[in-house]
Amino acid sequence: MALRELRTLYWRNGSLYLLDQRLLPWRERYVRCTSYKQVARAIKEMVVRGAPAIGVATLYGMVLAAKGTKARRSERLREAAETLKSTRPTAVNLFWAVDHMLGVAENAMRAKKDVFKALLEEADRLAEQDIETNKKIGENGAGLIPDGSVVMTYCNAGGLATVGYGTAVGVIRAAHESGKKISVIVPETRPKLQGARLTAFELSKLGIPYKIITDNMAAMLMSRGDVSCIVVGADRVLAKTGHVINKIGTLSLAISAKFFGVPFYVAAPLTSFDFKRGPEEVKIEERSIEEVLNFAGKIIAPRGSDAINLAFDITPPALVSAIITEHGVYEPDGLMTLERYSRAVSGP
Amino acid sequence: MALRELRTLYWRNGSLYLLDQRLLPWRERYVRCTSYKQVARAIKEMVVRGAPAIGVATLYGMVLAAKGTKARRSERLREAAETLKSTRPTAVNLFWAVDHMLGVAENAMRAKKDVFKALLEEADRLAEQDIETNKKIGENGAGLIPDGSVVMTYCNAGGLATVGYGTAVGVIRAAHESGKKISVIVPETRPKLQGARLTAFELSKLGIPYKIITDNMAAMLMSRGDVSCIVVGADRVLAKTGHVINKIGTLSLAISAKFFGVPFYVAAPLTSFDFKRGPEEVKIEERSIEEVLNFAGKIIAPRGSDAINLAFDITPPALVSAIITEHGVYEPDGLMTLERYSRAVSGP
Repeated sequence: MALRELRTLYWRNGSLYLLDQRLLPWRERYVRCTSYKQVARAIKEMVVRGAPAIGVATLYGMVLAAKGTKARRSERLREAAETLKSTRPTAVNLFWAVDHMLGVAENAMRAKKDVFKALLEEADRLAEQDIETNKKIGENGAGLIPDGSVVMTYCNAGGLATVGYGTAVGVIRAAHESGKKISVIVPETRPKLQGARLTAFELSKLGIPYKIITDNMAAMLMSRGDVSCIVVGADRVLAKTGHVINKIGTLSLAISAKFFGVPFYVAAPLTSFDFKRGPEEVKIEERSIEEVLNFAGKIIAPRGSDAINLAFDITPPALVSAIITEHGVYEPDGLMTLERYSRAVSGP
Repeated sequence: MALRELRTLYWRNGSLYLLDQRLLPWRERYVRCTSYKQVARAIKEMVVRGAPAIGVATLYGMVLAAKGTKARRSERLREAAETLKSTRPTAVNLFWAVDHMLGVAENAMRAKKDVFKALLEEADRLAEQDIETNKKIGENGAGLIPDGSVVMTYCNAGGLATVGYGTAVGVIRAAHESGKKISVIVPETRPKLQGARLTAFELSKLGIPYKIITDNMAAMLMSRGDVSCIVVGADRVLAKTGHVINKIGTLSLAISAKFFGVPFYVAAPLTSFDFKRGPEEVKIEERSIEEVLNFAGKIIAPRGSDAINLAFDITPPALVSAIITEHGVYEPDGLMTLERYSRAVSGP
């Protein structure tokens, strides 16, 4: 299956279908969700992952909550909002999607319109908009990637982390599509190997040459001058301070990039921006230690070992060269000027 | 089996037995070597690993080459020297061990002594000395570790990387044995997981509390103030410049430690010191990309993926707080004063 045919998620006949990313690159199987609870579980278990994709899955989760009779609909929507918000505390798109859909539902109720239909149309519209937004991010970022670059990315900020095209991988893809000779360094991204499994999978489908490394190899490659620049995605960008929250390991890359003078770019849509909170106000998700203590289904440490499993880290603005959005390229201290676009995205 | 009974290697009835570290922590099995070629293969395949342990295995490899008739003995020793030196290009102990044993053999021949016996005695003596040296490193380093410290180590610089006791883990162990309340953060150390498998195994046997992390989590823990200091071993210390060559990932930890003001210590015996070369003269081993692309017989990336597998990196002296040796604690720019001890170790 070519990448353009491979969608992270789609809606058909009253159900949401999610590509099960835990099985990639070995199997391409879709999970069918007919209730918001199934969507919440799929987000929690990382069937779907990547901040923008989680956001769109959440939109359809709210659509599913509105299905059925009018009776108790408002209550169902409130329950769905709570359940969906509890799945992954760090990705801000999820919260944005829930609140946005509650607003859409309220407006439809007030106007005596069909609530389910209004929610489904909005989810479809925003799913399509996700792809358009990513393409704009790609266009805006491609200019930062010189011909002949060896670009390092991290985790998976590709089509699989969005509805399609990708944010950080979208920038790489746009540079590649514009005819530049680009190759990519892909850190495997422990513990769940989104780099080795997903980013490598996407790049191979796109015909962009890549090399996989273990995460701990990045600094040595930078010290040798083997990395032209780094482009990563974001689970949340704190617009007030310029901090970037992304997959655990991003901070380490950013520190090494600063040390060796390698440009460090973040690509993210406005739906991943948080215009209210500072870094100490953000909850960093901790996941099960079994994800660290097991590797490809095999225990890798003595039985009974303790572990830590922080899913994300926080990169301070001093380490970020620029942030690439669908509205242009910004320095981390100039992000609040994007707030007006943010209001336009999320409605009045 | 308690750790004090668990030896990385031992000599019995004309054979060298090596604990197969690829099977730890799941199985404790020894591989019997009756020829230097088997020893060379065991080193190459990482049955035995860790610079000091590789050095001692090499000593016995040379003993095995001297076994048998006098005819062609010098030739066999020269062949063994070449074969053993070709196994792992980065660990300097290996080269030291080969050259030292060639010198011992030459002296014995000149003095018309039993060459095999002279080599065996020297290997036994240096194997015991390894443990004593480590204990001294531990004593010298323990003073740097305050009571209540959370110490991060890396890879395995423990008893399993030496004949016994350990270098970096020896420092942690000595601090623990002196009654201080110490806990340890253990990065798993991809691709071969020496941290999660071996260091965790040793710490659990020693009753020292530890938590395993993925390598990419280290910077985030430092940013939170959760790491008191870092102690790592070394595959080679360049005394002229103060550069430290150690398992891939060390450089990244050292850069993050500098960024967050966390002390970064290196523990190494004088046999791991290189008094001649600068960083550009050292060959950094590259191992098979299959080590990166596979785990436990399972491919973790799309078939046909390319990868990079650098086994070591080079940490510049500006990132190293101190180097702990059996002769005391040194700043990276004062290491050449150790040369006279080095001559004493390696003989006239």
